[in-house]
Amino acid sequence: MKVDGRPYRTIWLNADGSSVDIIDQRWLPHDFRIATLRSVGDAATAIRDMWVRGAPLIGATAAYGLALAAREDPGDPALDAARERLAATRPTAINLRWALDAVRERLGPLAPSQRAAAAYVEAGRIADEDVEINRAIGRNGLKLLERLAEGKKPGQPVNILTHCNAGWLATVDYGTATAPIYLAMEERLPVHVYVDETRPRNQGASLTAWELAHHGADHTLIVDNAGGHLMQHGLIDMVIVGSDRTTANGDVCNKIGTYLKALAARDNAVPFYVALPSPTIDWTVRDGVKDIPIEERGADEVNFVQGLGEGGAITRVRIAPEGGRAANPAFDVTPARLVTGLITERGVAEASPEGLKALFPDRAPLEQV
Amino acid sequence: MKVDGRPYRTIWLNADGSSVDIIDQRWLPHDFRIATLRSVGDAATAIRDMWVRGAPLIGATAAYGLALAAREDPGDPALDAARERLAATRPTAINLRWALDAVRERLGPLAPSQRAAAAYVEAGRIADEDVEINRAIGRNGLKLLERLAEGKKPGQPVNILTHCNAGWLATVDYGTATAPIYLAMEERLPVHVYVDETRPRNQGASLTAWELAHHGADHTLIVDNAGGHLMQHGLIDMVIVGSDRTTANGDVCNKIGTYLKALAARDNAVPFYVALPSPTIDWTVRDGVKDIPIEERGADEVNFVQGLGEGGAITRVRIAPEGGRAANPAFDVTPARLVTGLITERGVAEASPEGLKALFPDRAPLEQV
Repeated sequence: MKVDGRPYRTIWLNADGSSVDIIDQRWLPHDFRIATLRSVGDAATAIRDMWVRGAPLIGATAAYGLALAAREDPGDPALDAARERLAATRPTAINLRWALDAVRERLGPLAPSQRAAAAYVEAGRIADEDVEINRAIGRNGLKLLERLAEGKKPGQPVNILTHCNAGWLATVDYGTATAPIYLAMEERLPVHVYVDETRPRNQGASLTAWELAHHGADHTLIVDNAGGHLMQHGLIDMVIVGSDRTTANGDVCNKIGTYLKALAARDNAVPFYVALPSPTIDWTVRDGVKDIPIEERGADEVNFVQGLGEGGAITRVRIAPEGGRAANPAFDVTPARLVTGLITERGVAEASPEGLKALFPDRAPLEQV
Repeated sequence: MKVDGRPYRTIWLNADGSSVDIIDQRWLPHDFRIATLRSVGDAATAIRDMWVRGAPLIGATAAYGLALAAREDPGDPALDAARERLAATRPTAINLRWALDAVRERLGPLAPSQRAAAAYVEAGRIADEDVEINRAIGRNGLKLLERLAEGKKPGQPVNILTHCNAGWLATVDYGTATAPIYLAMEERLPVHVYVDETRPRNQGASLTAWELAHHGADHTLIVDNAGGHLMQHGLIDMVIVGSDRTTANGDVCNKIGTYLKALAARDNAVPFYVALPSPTIDWTVRDGVKDIPIEERGADEVNFVQGLGEGGAITRVRIAPEGGRAANPAFDVTPARLVTGLITERGVAEASPEGLKALFPDRAPLEQV
């Protein structure tokens, strides 16, 4: 998507053929910075410390991280160690392991001397595939928006609520939840987006609002507490969120707070959709609430808020009393029963084992678990 | 309650018999400051700009504001103008009008020369009555906590989730939602409180966490997004929130986001209680979602967060891109069907017209509306 009129992806291989550039998202929306990854350690830091975030982008970054590792040492022990190191950076995102396995399996049969080049090719393929998947998600979601637009007066926008950032900044390009919105804009279908700020890290306020603004998408920022009230008053036509991991049953693990919006959507008969690339589906897990480990992040994310200070520097302020305790679960699980549909690159699936199997008969269904 | 070992109320008449001191809550939790109100204008500013907040404390402050007005000019036109001025400061809180009407009616039959003294007496009575009401709410809520404690292993705390600040800082003393907690501590019943930070103004992080810490109450701060996840995992035994206005049907208007927690409580079979003094009941309104006007506050509360800067000064940071739009509804309405019970000074009422009438047969029931 565009930044100041120039098209960008969130990650790309540099002309030197080895180093990888990323948008360093820690400084958005106040400062647009590019960072260069030159080693597997750089890639691990970028994922762990959330220079990049979003399941698909984490996957692409991890894939390039393994390519950087292969350039340093293409032997099996070094590659396995690099894979473990990268896999340990974020425990919840399923794409991370999926991308690492894809690259590692590609390299296994190759002679060490061929591995680095092959790893870059595979990482590039994963990145390109993500863009294609998101465009397909966008086309499938656009049909839902077009149907909602039929119930509107001419010129009245379809009002969409989204949580966190499942935008192009969370992927290589287009985003998942935002892909239908960007395609709607191309089709001149009026849309308006309510953006949850998404505490504790405020990815909605800092990333989604920023990327929508740069693309000229009509939007309004709200606090996470406000969405239920807006739905009660008929101001939301549809919720679209992303997913960090979706189970074979259709349960959706996504940014903390997603579950609350799904409850409000059901209570007000607002359709609640999840946009997800199929690599986000974890066919080995059925019950998301019971079986997905939820990352518990540090208390500082709760106790402090980062922003642009009055002096113009990016800084943080403490909002809680000193010495207090804070809990910080990073994700929650929305049970499939609250999900109207799963917007995938192959179409919109019912959030159920049958719905997912019908759309992905070729993927492992796991009858035994 | 105590601050650094010394007992405080949130508002008190000074020894000069005319000026009124308040805890200026804008600087908490970082700085404990007292402000002095010397005129009706001071009182209006303190309410409008949220030096004080919380329905009961707003009522007491407005009552003292009318006393300050009567000291300046006890004539009917001046008192009526002062009442209108104070009533306009916060449109949603019902106690504000209730307290102003109580003082104004008390002064009506009196000669102007007697009015100022009578107004101070009435304001003092309103403040004392609030304390008594809250202690009674505490006793009634304590019975619910004792029942939940029976299902716990010895020494295991009852886990309570609360939203915003319905603590002693929101009242004259004890608080509404916190009164059962403070009384439980007096009875040595183990309790632990999860505190929603409560964006946009963070009254949970800055006020509830502060007052619980100063009273030695075991508590954990969480973001507003986290409560549903905690309930899914059995970590919450009970939700207790306050109310800014409760309808004759039992609908509860409270800080934005309360509705989302009520939905999560129902979905997880967690009891959801609202602690409220009966002056908070608006017998003239039935359907809270349709008929309670919701205050829309400024976008700056969404776009900026206040806290303690790294240099040690209280400052604010911008968290959203410049030039974006934000919506900021300050309250939402939780329908009675989601409320397990209303903890009042007379007992725990079912959240229904019948439940409220049974407990308050002497209050106007409005059959005609």
